[in-house]
Amino acid sequence: MIFSEQYIQVRKHSEQICEPLQTEDYVVQPIVDVSPPKWHLGHTTWFFETFILKPFHKEYRVYNSEYNYVFNSYYETIGSRVIRTDRGNLSRPSVSDVYAYRSYVDMAMGEFLKNTLTEEMKELFFLGLNHEQQHQELLLTDIKYILGNNPLFPAYRKDETMSLDFETATSEMISFKEGIYEIGYSGTGFCFDNELGRHKVYLHDFSMSSNLISNAAYLEFIDDGGYTNFTHWHADGWDWVNNNKIIAPMYWHLVEGSWYTYTFEGLKPLDMKAAVTHISYYEAYAFASWCKMRLPTEFEWEVAAKQFKWGLRWEWTESAYLPYPGFNKAPGAIGEYNGKFMVNQKVLRGASEATPSGHSRITYRNFFHPDLRWQFTGIRLAQ
Amino acid sequence: MIFSEQYIQVRKHSEQICEPLQTEDYVVQPIVDVSPPKWHLGHTTWFFETFILKPFHKEYRVYNSEYNYVFNSYYETIGSRVIRTDRGNLSRPSVSDVYAYRSYVDMAMGEFLKNTLTEEMKELFFLGLNHEQQHQELLLTDIKYILGNNPLFPAYRKDETMSLDFETATSEMISFKEGIYEIGYSGTGFCFDNELGRHKVYLHDFSMSSNLISNAAYLEFIDDGGYTNFTHWHADGWDWVNNNKIIAPMYWHLVEGSWYTYTFEGLKPLDMKAAVTHISYYEAYAFASWCKMRLPTEFEWEVAAKQFKWGLRWEWTESAYLPYPGFNKAPGAIGEYNGKFMVNQKVLRGASEATPSGHSRITYRNFFHPDLRWQFTGIRLAQ
Amino acid sequence: MIFSEQYIQVRKHSEQICEPLQTEDYVVQPIVDVSPPKWHLGHTTWFFETFILKPFHKEYRVYNSEYNYVFNSYYETIGSRVIRTDRGNLSRPSVSDVYAYRSYVDMAMGEFLKNTLTEEMKELFFLGLNHEQQHQELLLTDIKYILGNNPLFPAYRKDETMSLDFETATSEMISFKEGIYEIGYSGTGFCFDNELGRHKVYLHDFSMSSNLISNAAYLEFIDDGGYTNFTHWHADGWDWVNNNKIIAPMYWHLVEGSWYTYTFEGLKPLDMKAAVTHISYYEAYAFASWCKMRLPTEFEWEVAAKQFKWGLRWEWTESAYLPYPGFNKAPGAIGEYNGKFMVNQKVLRGASEATPSGHSRITYRNFFHPDLRWQFTGIRLAQ
Amino acid sequence: MIFSEQYIQVRKHSEQICEPLQTEDYVVQPIVDVSPPKWHLGHTTWFFETFILKPFHKEYRVYNSEYNYVFNSYYETIGSRVIRTDRGNLSRPSVSDVYAYRSYVDMAMGEFLKNTLTEEMKELFFLGLNHEQQHQELLLTDIKYILGNNPLFPAYRKDETMSLDFETATSEMISFKEGIYEIGYSGTGFCFDNELGRHKVYLHDFSMSSNLISNAAYLEFIDDGGYTNFTHWHADGWDWVNNNKIIAPMYWHLVEGSWYTYTFEGLKPLDMKAAVTHISYYEAYAFASWCKMRLPTEFEWEVAAKQFKWGLRWEWTESAYLPYPGFNKAPGAIGEYNGKFMVNQKVLRGASEATPSGHSRITYRNFFHPDLRWQFTGIRLAQ
Repeated sequence: MIFSEQYIQVRKHSEQICEPLQTEDYVVQPIVDVSPPKWHLGHTTWFFETFILKPFHKEYRVYNSEYNYVFNSYYETIGSRVIRTDRGNLSRPSVSDVYAYRSYVDMAMGEFLKNTLTEEMKELFFLGLNHEQQHQELLLTDIKYILGNNPLFPAYRKDETMSLDFETATSEMISFKEGIYEIGYSGTGFCFDNELGRHKVYLHDFSMSSNLISNAAYLEFIDDGGYTNFTHWHADGWDWVNNNKIIAPMYWHLVEGSWYTYTFEGLKPLDMKAAVTHISYYEAYAFASWCKMRLPTEFEWEVAAKQFKWGLRWEWTESAYLPYPGFNKAPGAIGEYNGKFMVNQKVLRGASEATPSGHSRITYRNFFHPDLRWQFTGIRLAQ
Repeated sequence: MIFSEQYIQVRKHSEQICEPLQTEDYVVQPIVDVSPPKWHLGHTTWFFETFILKPFHKEYRVYNSEYNYVFNSYYETIGSRVIRTDRGNLSRPSVSDVYAYRSYVDMAMGEFLKNTLTEEMKELFFLGLNHEQQHQELLLTDIKYILGNNPLFPAYRKDETMSLDFETATSEMISFKEGIYEIGYSGTGFCFDNELGRHKVYLHDFSMSSNLISNAAYLEFIDDGGYTNFTHWHADGWDWVNNNKIIAPMYWHLVEGSWYTYTFEGLKPLDMKAAVTHISYYEAYAFASWCKMRLPTEFEWEVAAKQFKWGLRWEWTESAYLPYPGFNKAPGAIGEYNGKFMVNQKVLRGASEATPSGHSRITYRNFFHPDLRWQFTGIRLAQ
Repeated sequence: MIFSEQYIQVRKHSEQICEPLQTEDYVVQPIVDVSPPKWHLGHTTWFFETFILKPFHKEYRVYNSEYNYVFNSYYETIGSRVIRTDRGNLSRPSVSDVYAYRSYVDMAMGEFLKNTLTEEMKELFFLGLNHEQQHQELLLTDIKYILGNNPLFPAYRKDETMSLDFETATSEMISFKEGIYEIGYSGTGFCFDNELGRHKVYLHDFSMSSNLISNAAYLEFIDDGGYTNFTHWHADGWDWVNNNKIIAPMYWHLVEGSWYTYTFEGLKPLDMKAAVTHISYYEAYAFASWCKMRLPTEFEWEVAAKQFKWGLRWEWTESAYLPYPGFNKAPGAIGEYNGKFMVNQKVLRGASEATPSGHSRITYRNFFHPDLRWQFTGIRLAQ
Repeated sequence: MIFSEQYIQVRKHSEQICEPLQTEDYVVQPIVDVSPPKWHLGHTTWFFETFILKPFHKEYRVYNSEYNYVFNSYYETIGSRVIRTDRGNLSRPSVSDVYAYRSYVDMAMGEFLKNTLTEEMKELFFLGLNHEQQHQELLLTDIKYILGNNPLFPAYRKDETMSLDFETATSEMISFKEGIYEIGYSGTGFCFDNELGRHKVYLHDFSMSSNLISNAAYLEFIDDGGYTNFTHWHADGWDWVNNNKIIAPMYWHLVEGSWYTYTFEGLKPLDMKAAVTHISYYEAYAFASWCKMRLPTEFEWEVAAKQFKWGLRWEWTESAYLPYPGFNKAPGAIGEYNGKFMVNQKVLRGASEATPSGHSRITYRNFFHPDLRWQFTGIRLAQ
């Protein structure tokens, strides 16, 4: 596929995700981690404008110089910005302003892509596409949060006949042998800088379950007092449970004795066979501890994942998000993409039902703070 | 005017205030004191539904039973509610949902008002109208905050040829004699319960300025180091100045050495003759102290106001918001209207450019916490 | 009594209050309102050093120039200081350092008082004595807090045979006639600046109870669900109750179904006849509201107090702490004594069992924020 | 050495550390991480009482049943406890109470140690000794914080002729070969459970500096704008710098243009040759980044440390504190010792000048949150 087609396809997908929204849904930011959908649409556009059009497209005229302040996420190199907690306080630019901004930049990118791109430009172009795909996943998870925390529980879409959740019941443990394994990206396609630096690790014998933990299994943990018995938890996790009065995964609601969960189709009875989701690392760890098992490391996961089906949930690993040996961040603003977050976070591997197709790799390293659960996170056990 | 005409007129005015808004402007809540415009439109509607239609209109069917949770402001009697800080996190009900709710309730009220009203119904009806007028003022002040704190400084309306601000320069002190005065509402029209209990107070000789303090005068205070000299301030005020890094009234911006201020027409050079506004009680007190004068009490104000023009700014008084002798709150939910706020607040007297016409009285007692300044507040001095 | 004797007597009393303490008890600051006893001993000494010895005693050499930083309470005029929350973080100066500082200053004051004092010096001298007496009351209330919030509940003193609490059961309402009354200090002795400006107020008919509310009466309020029924409370009070999970006065403990209260003699069964104490203004107001009565204003109290016994509890009034007509704060640091606190506080009248003898007046205006209750506060009702 | 001699020696050392203290120094807790010295003395005693005397010494009678509440640190298994932030609010038990408690428990331990100990008892006994040694280090670091943050900067001890700081200037890089290495404790003496599970890791070629970073080198980083250039920092580190206005290591003071640092001997001119200390992981990382180098992993450190001198500073590593393969926490309360902290922390390796002699091992894993710096932390670089 030629570059301009790829570009159009990715850009359109972001807008398709937003099609079911009402204008008001584009605006709010109920928690700091959730950005307003119109902010995502503007920010991904700003990314192409800032890192490709401004430096490389000579005739390009910036759409609105104030937008740099509004749509810069965290790039200190690029100047000051709306503080993150304030994104939901901005009624302007309006949704139609943002779409007009997208059109303007898309037109300019269309022109730009008629040129022959240098290697540097190509790298930035593919980074821009992958960046937008990451925000597509965030768009979906943020929309779910916005609607799922509304007291009216509006549905995002009509009931789907085919569920994405497959059977989780018949899990088995798959064994792997002690030895030296290679970790990290080795192909020629796109990958993020944090996957590079393919290197060797020594793994001891381990086994990993072929399937994710189901809601049914997680409910057993709850019914066995999982949230009230400190022995399963990290000290920080136990504080988190008590300070936030956590008693179940996010989006679970106990209605007259039965568990319901908010889904994109609205509030539904809990599907026992579906893989449990919207749990924090603390909960994943506590569940594993209750099972007298543990979470895999990201290295075990990367080795093992060739032998099981993955892609339904982001799977919490025991690994902290750290640089691979030989990791070097790029110079300038792009160097802020990944490296500066390599502390205080946990690695998640896999992908989720919200990940755009074509945006998953066995070497992909996702990362979040251990208390977060608005993403489609899940649990796979190791031993 | 007959009841149904009064009703329609008041209700329409709320919607007229919102006409210049874009949908997104209805949604956000940048600070806890500012409610989203769509919430004001819904809440005032809920007030008629809850206190008139539900108890007195037999055939009335509640529009949406979830709305009680969404649009109840602070009436503990009426059940649980969205916590105040979360009003800006709700994308639904949408703006058009809220307008549909208004139409439905307006239709039912139209039917209801064809009946002969009992005294109790009439009282609640006029309370509902005055309640909506109070929210009309809040709508304007909240819209100003939403737009005026947006980095794009969008205008709410086009330039007006006629300014509401009159000349403030030629102020003189008017003297009043020591003696017994009567305070509180004594007419037969509508008033709030907090104005009732007309009673005597003893006032000592005092004088009050015939005019409000201008921006020019306030700027002298700033230029004389008013915000950096603790001697003018209350201890709590001094903490407020330092913790919030206050250096000027709200909406003032120093742009390349010149003061600008955000107005409904956008960012404008500061009008030196206009009455200073958007200042906290702490600032009003410090300014008065810097002038070696003081703020009037609400009793002095009520006595004196017959002799000067007022209505441009809510004027901070030195009086704490306390019950008049013999104040009794009404039974039930309506009793929560005023009484439970009679602590920790300061009385403001007068009215502002945002007050709907017909909604001001010389006995009217407005009240806010001493640090708030998003209302059109101003300063009049006494001695 | 000559000045030096008065001085010695007041200064000794502070040290007598601390006699039962162990060294460790002098050091801690469990909440921001409670200062470490050694801080009180140092601060009152610093007051004489700063406002009398340094400006007026030529040969005086400052004991330790660092102590200005340590023992300045809130006088911006006098320079920077340890932030209030940090008083309990300072192990040095040690207790014996502080006593040595007291001796040094007392010696210098002894010398100084041999001179003839000007009027200004006399004023500051008596202010210093009254200031120390105020801190004597704080010493006692802070010691009670320090010991009473320790899980070991150590006693401050042995059981006393004679209780200070008199019978509260047989209260009656005393009536007062509408008319003009004079308020404020008119004598020739010492008073604080906030009592000056004797002036007229107009009071309407009112009556006041001859006695304070007993623990028994307050327990009825609790048992009737007083803390769980919002209708009795101010909105701010209701938030305070819920945020702090308040269910009884401070120092009350429910031990196996019976109420105990921490006293200076340790944990004791609640004395039903004693006047209720350690309640906030919010609680006093809610109790009065539950009785379908109200709290008196400070003016009513000052008029009525000639006709009942008072001095056992600081009695919450409905009045906000505001300047009397004609109030003028003194120039310089002394002007920071009272005036800058005249916002956001409530007036208490009377005195308490912790007030030093000779330090109470019918015109005395004490003041605290409405949520505070570590002082010996109580309730008297009006109508 | 026989058990009882070892016991006496360790226990005495804790008291020797406290000898220079005044009673007041035992009491305060200026930040949550710093415990009052008397709390350390009591808590280590409670450890022997709770885990040895109560379960294994039949005749033992608990000294004071309230002390379990006061001196339990974080063992949920053992019941409720004073919340950590409140340790500095307790004036009782007094310092002499705590010493009496120590004597009582020491006497009982003396009796107990006359028996033959089972393996389980021995394990707990050595855990108790090592636990006390860990608190000896904390005692010193907490005392430094208490005195070093006092505005009077009292010294803990007299000047020492021999400094513990050796020359840091002549550092060289030592190289290590790629390959499989064994990590973890393999001896027969005491070690903590987190060192067990000796296992293989694969390391790539790396080199490590033979010496720690000096104050002189760190000052270059400061003078080059290290604290004001975001590119060196993690995003979380950059927030930490700005929120806390960090401009230098803890205890550094700029006095009239020259750097001083608080030491146990009081405030001293900064010793340029001494190893920099009291820096957070964020600072260590930023410094390394500024040098275009990195911090070692804990595995690299354990391999390399045989070839350089260590023990002066706890050295921040890049490694997150995670369980070794096969880590199993002990059952019961002892299982809470290490395992539940294995999230959100960074590993430090080495030892410090405050570490008791005999309490360091090449496999020892210390851990702290990345923002903490009251320990004697330092920097060694890798490549």
